[in-house]
Amino acid sequence: MSDATNNRLEQLLSRFAQGDRLALARLITLVENRSADVATVMERLYSRAGQAHVVGITGPPGAGKSTLIDRLVTKLRARKQQVAVLAIDPSSPFSGGAVLGDRVRMGDHYSDPGVYIRSLSTRGSHGGLSRAARQIVTLLEAFKFDAIIVETAGVGQTELDIMDLAHTTVVVTVPEGGDGIQIMKAGLNEIADIFVVNKADRDGADRVKAELELNVHLRGGDGWRPPVLLTEAANDRGIEPLMQQLDRHLEYLRTHTDPQAERQHRAHEFVEILTGQLEERAKNALGNGSARELVESVRAGRLNPYTAARMLLDDQTAIGALLGKTVLDC
Amino acid sequence: MSDATNNRLEQLLSRFAQGDRLALARLITLVENRSADVATVMERLYSRAGQAHVVGITGPPGAGKSTLIDRLVTKLRARKQQVAVLAIDPSSPFSGGAVLGDRVRMGDHYSDPGVYIRSLSTRGSHGGLSRAARQIVTLLEAFKFDAIIVETAGVGQTELDIMDLAHTTVVVTVPEGGDGIQIMKAGLNEIADIFVVNKADRDGADRVKAELELNVHLRGGDGWRPPVLLTEAANDRGIEPLMQQLDRHLEYLRTHTDPQAERQHRAHEFVEILTGQLEERAKNALGNGSARELVESVRAGRLNPYTAARMLLDDQTAIGALLGKTVLDC
Repeated sequence: MSDATNNRLEQLLSRFAQGDRLALARLITLVENRSADVATVMERLYSRAGQAHVVGITGPPGAGKSTLIDRLVTKLRARKQQVAVLAIDPSSPFSGGAVLGDRVRMGDHYSDPGVYIRSLSTRGSHGGLSRAARQIVTLLEAFKFDAIIVETAGVGQTELDIMDLAHTTVVVTVPEGGDGIQIMKAGLNEIADIFVVNKADRDGADRVKAELELNVHLRGGDGWRPPVLLTEAANDRGIEPLMQQLDRHLEYLRTHTDPQAERQHRAHEFVEILTGQLEERAKNALGNGSARELVESVRAGRLNPYTAARMLLDDQTAIGALLGKTVLDC
Repeated sequence: MSDATNNRLEQLLSRFAQGDRLALARLITLVENRSADVATVMERLYSRAGQAHVVGITGPPGAGKSTLIDRLVTKLRARKQQVAVLAIDPSSPFSGGAVLGDRVRMGDHYSDPGVYIRSLSTRGSHGGLSRAARQIVTLLEAFKFDAIIVETAGVGQTELDIMDLAHTTVVVTVPEGGDGIQIMKAGLNEIADIFVVNKADRDGADRVKAELELNVHLRGGDGWRPPVLLTEAANDRGIEPLMQQLDRHLEYLRTHTDPQAERQHRAHEFVEILTGQLEERAKNALGNGSARELVESVRAGRLNPYTAARMLLDDQTAIGALLGKTVLDC
């Protein structure tokens, strides 16, 4: 890394530490662009993280998640909390253009300096999305937000993975036909700490609530039992009980720490960080020509990619040279 | 690798080459379990792949994808094709238990020796799902199926990534309110080669069709323009036109090869394979204690995981020893 780059990064980190929003935004952009500086940034800020309540909000499209978040932000602001919202958008992988709508509703909060709203494009992420989400949440924690709300729209494996980041995961559904079943099919019931049946003024809300409660009951077990709440976010109804359950769950987590689970969590996080960095380094090294001939043979279709991977990996020196810092810094 | 393991693997590969379904199933299980043998298997079978038409079927839950696939399989069987269906289930990441229903409808084909149906659990996959899907499709291609149908249920980033595997991607929707918009918000319009509005006997089918056609029109450009078809899979209507469009798209791909795109595709595949193997090796090496002290410090919370990753990666010898074959074979 050159001295100039180093200096720029130091300035950015110092402004970040002073609470400069622009510095926060710039660091998030580094993560989005998978800059080579991300590892340094994360290492420096990691120890500053860990005080916020990270709340995940997920559920099928059209469940009213954004409106619900909007209402929650209002309540959190009334408590004088600093709030960050990270919306992980199913925007196009090609154009990067999200359809308007959800974002617009948050309008009131955009002008509030106590609220930071950022959406993370899924464009071209190819598996890097949950890693980027983890890093951005660490940045937001290090920036000393009190509450961080992570919204994933859509239902899928990456979205389930991202919800792992949250201390408290709220699964939002609506009283439409078969919605309780869809939640269960999508595996969302397994990650829910709190269920919300939104748009509860529609027919069937009580039925979906009963389905979800039965599911919670059948799961049984000790410990936290996910409550099922009815809300009408659009009419600002049911938000206070949701806030109370969020508080209750955070309190539960504080009084029920499991040292073994924490050790596992740290080990899991480490593997994710290490493999993420290996992946970035391998991509850069291949792109930069450290393994030019091999890549060219694969590109031309002359060499089986699995054979090429084995050739690289079987050679301790080659893989050390490919991934070690010395070569990459040349 | 021990001689006994080697022998067992050789027998499996030889039975696979003779068309033994049980050997195919065993190899798929190796992939699901992320066995250390997967790299060897893929290297051996990679060159046998590449003749099948890989068709991706995706779209929101409840769109009738399974019924549509059921009808397509019937048509393909009438042409005497050998057909594989890979259903990628949003089953629980914890219990691994999928809710019954979708799978049941395929009942007729389960007893047909010309059809192979397999569902891939998403349980505990954490980012490895699209890699596993790619490997299983390579296995199915190497087994010489004529058509391979990959179904992803749910809508999300991983599901979009998986559709990259398909030669032809069919996006299925229904005439429900706002469904066309949801498709676009989820980025599905960008990956569609063919749109299907299923359950077209319901109100609004023509409107959704018009929305999707407008979207195709606005995208403009040369080359393939995704047709929008109306189907009623449950009533076996509209399936023949879909078959014709699948044929037409395959023919289009055959007559419009882009050497540059193929080179890029191979390079992309190689990076994915290499980083996947790096990830597996790193996980195994960390688990097996090659970096015991470091991992223990992270687990105990004494060492920042980003610092630990940097320490490993900055040391060429350490990373070579961690990932190189010699150490892992000890």
